[in-house]
Amino acid sequence: MTESTTGIVPIDIEVSSQVATHWYNLNADFPEPTPPALNPATDEPLIPEDLAALFPMSLITQEISTERFIEIPQAVREVYSLWRPSPLHRAKRLERAIGTKAKIYYKYEGVSPTGSHKPNSAVPQAYFNKLEGIERLTTETGAGQWGASLAFACALFGLESETWQVRSSYEQKPYRHMQMEVYGSSCHASPSELTEAGRRMRAEFPDTTGSLGMAISEAVEVAMRDPKTNYALGSVLNHVMLHQSVIGQEVLAQLTQAGEEQADVVFGCAGGGSNAAGLMFPLLGQNLREGTTTRFVACEPAACPSITKGEYRYDFGDVAGLTPKLKMYTLGADFVPPAIHASGLRYHGMSPMLSHAVHMGLIGATAIEQKDCFRAGITFARAEGIIPAPESTHAIAGALRYATTDARGGEVIVIGLSGNGVLDLTAYSGVLG
Amino acid sequence: MTESTTGIVPIDIEVSSQVATHWYNLNADFPEPTPPALNPATDEPLIPEDLAALFPMSLITQEISTERFIEIPQAVREVYSLWRPSPLHRAKRLERAIGTKAKIYYKYEGVSPTGSHKPNSAVPQAYFNKLEGIERLTTETGAGQWGASLAFACALFGLESETWQVRSSYEQKPYRHMQMEVYGSSCHASPSELTEAGRRMRAEFPDTTGSLGMAISEAVEVAMRDPKTNYALGSVLNHVMLHQSVIGQEVLAQLTQAGEEQADVVFGCAGGGSNAAGLMFPLLGQNLREGTTTRFVACEPAACPSITKGEYRYDFGDVAGLTPKLKMYTLGADFVPPAIHASGLRYHGMSPMLSHAVHMGLIGATAIEQKDCFRAGITFARAEGIIPAPESTHAIAGALRYATTDARGGEVIVIGLSGNGVLDLTAYSGVLG
Repeated sequence: MTESTTGIVPIDIEVSSQVATHWYNLNADFPEPTPPALNPATDEPLIPEDLAALFPMSLITQEISTERFIEIPQAVREVYSLWRPSPLHRAKRLERAIGTKAKIYYKYEGVSPTGSHKPNSAVPQAYFNKLEGIERLTTETGAGQWGASLAFACALFGLESETWQVRSSYEQKPYRHMQMEVYGSSCHASPSELTEAGRRMRAEFPDTTGSLGMAISEAVEVAMRDPKTNYALGSVLNHVMLHQSVIGQEVLAQLTQAGEEQADVVFGCAGGGSNAAGLMFPLLGQNLREGTTTRFVACEPAACPSITKGEYRYDFGDVAGLTPKLKMYTLGADFVPPAIHASGLRYHGMSPMLSHAVHMGLIGATAIEQKDCFRAGITFARAEGIIPAPESTHAIAGALRYATTDARGGEVIVIGLSGNGVLDLTAYSGVLG
Repeated sequence: MTESTTGIVPIDIEVSSQVATHWYNLNADFPEPTPPALNPATDEPLIPEDLAALFPMSLITQEISTERFIEIPQAVREVYSLWRPSPLHRAKRLERAIGTKAKIYYKYEGVSPTGSHKPNSAVPQAYFNKLEGIERLTTETGAGQWGASLAFACALFGLESETWQVRSSYEQKPYRHMQMEVYGSSCHASPSELTEAGRRMRAEFPDTTGSLGMAISEAVEVAMRDPKTNYALGSVLNHVMLHQSVIGQEVLAQLTQAGEEQADVVFGCAGGGSNAAGLMFPLLGQNLREGTTTRFVACEPAACPSITKGEYRYDFGDVAGLTPKLKMYTLGADFVPPAIHASGLRYHGMSPMLSHAVHMGLIGATAIEQKDCFRAGITFARAEGIIPAPESTHAIAGALRYATTDARGGEVIVIGLSGNGVLDLTAYSGVLG
């Protein structure tokens, strides 16, 4: 099906040549293939039809593709051009504030309409679903960045959307569901009474603060009921990593423009892995193909340490066992992070592609305490003027630790600033208070 | 004094040539001069020394300047380059949604670190104060955009800052003072117990929800006490209009780049006038110098209609009568907008320069009901993907009314989108609910 046969036509604006024309797929360059997802009934590798109840065929094709570059539709590039390319800033004030001789850059995704990198995948997911005649998307969200971004994307392409948000975040961050509502979407605290899975979890754990695994079960259940409703996931899956590659591709171009030969060390925050992968994979691909020597550190919360404390094994993506089994670092599908954990980055597992890269020794990882993260966030805000999302503070904390201890003079450090923290100010307030 | 003698050195980053090098001053091009501010004790035109207790001499010089272009210091341009030039987007999805044949563009200031146009003046104000040895700035804020922006600017130049926020906004929008606190600033609900003026107002009106006029009195009183403390105003004054001219200068360049000969009608929201003036004055200057025929509509809230319902006369800028007298459209210095009024745009008066332009017939004005504003904001959010600040919805509502009734095919409409509304979602929620 093409754009012109479905009523999704490009709005016909000129898009800057600096907006990527293709997504980059690391599965074309991995020395060994990423272990496939398994059908939970048979434990056999998934076939595309296994996913057809939840995703449009175009996204399933991307999910299993090993093509290196996949073209970005013009209608998606037009929406990207609302905020892309996102800026790569040199953080000279921060360098001075912490007294490092390294050069620190940050790639700032907070300029998107919802304030994070999540629209990079929400926009193509809404687009491809619309193209295949889907009318409604369901999803889950933790802190709310993904839910708001999908609501934004659905508004632009004329789709309905419905989000289940982890209950503790729903209650702590009320602005997020208001944001979804302004875009015309609905949002429920999870576990809810609206689904079989939700009712079961509430009966079993009446006081639960919720988890992404539970919210996924609810959203998947609703999508499975109706052929015109699909499900959208904001992280973890291969096609999400693919869409996020616009971040790293821009970084490569922007570093060249800034006169840097390569990034020496890249720090990204890791929950499900979408921001870290989007930032790192294009640079890792360059290492694999062209012999650059960029190193990578995935920074995860000590309260949800899937890479550094989890096991690398097949596990379900959700609590109810409705999803395929994925080979990943996991804390177990029933893991619930402590309610005090204030950022997103609360998924029990980790993107299979990112997990594979870590398992092969291509990407390193570290876990950071929440207090150290917010302290780093405040240092960053007062030096650079941008209040980082709590998620992003993990990458900042990792980078600052490195820049003030191990970094050599002139070394090029890149921080993935996944979003801004304006809707997370209560979390900062707790630390300042 | 120069940058290098004071410890404010540029951080030495390359600034894009698209970031303005000079501010534009409409006082060079007005057919008749803007009526001067008066010393309230003598009713004589102010002399620079009258302002020296509150402002650094460099800003006072700008306040009374009739030079057409004033150079922007490199250290200010470096901070501007964090988000400038801000995007001018063609709103084709919105055009389609409302069915207009006009071409609608919007100039989006919400990409700044604090989400509005206010840093355009906060940054130079912090800079020039620091340059003259000032250690602390006091200010007032309504909805909080200005207070947050001054806190941001002070953090970057190593100044302390202290803000008095209109009590109704302080209570309705708690994220704003948290934002100031992350930047290291303090914020008090006004009227407060911390000043003579505040205590007097609380004694007289124990249930007052506050006003900008009261908050200004408190901030000015504190600044007058201490020679190392100055006061900063986020709107109204000539030097603020000057700093905001970066907006309109970019619009001129961006429209040319988009192939448009001129803007036909420009809609800006007007409270104290800083966003409208910043957007309109460079284009109005072009009308006056080069004969272009751009028309301008200042859109103000029906709940605070200083231009459309006020008188054009000399009035005080604050309640306590501590400021100079300004010739402006005013509702009277003791005006208090109804607490239900949800946006900023709550000042009793209007920038003397903008008032002068209106009085001379160079700029038109309209007042819009809050409900119509939020409806326009929701239409905009669902079409263009950006949730506008409540202030900005006034400009949108004005533009949509024009675009769907009076506009001719192909006419070029420009909307000033002064900021995003993510910290104002509760106000939207009230309308959606």
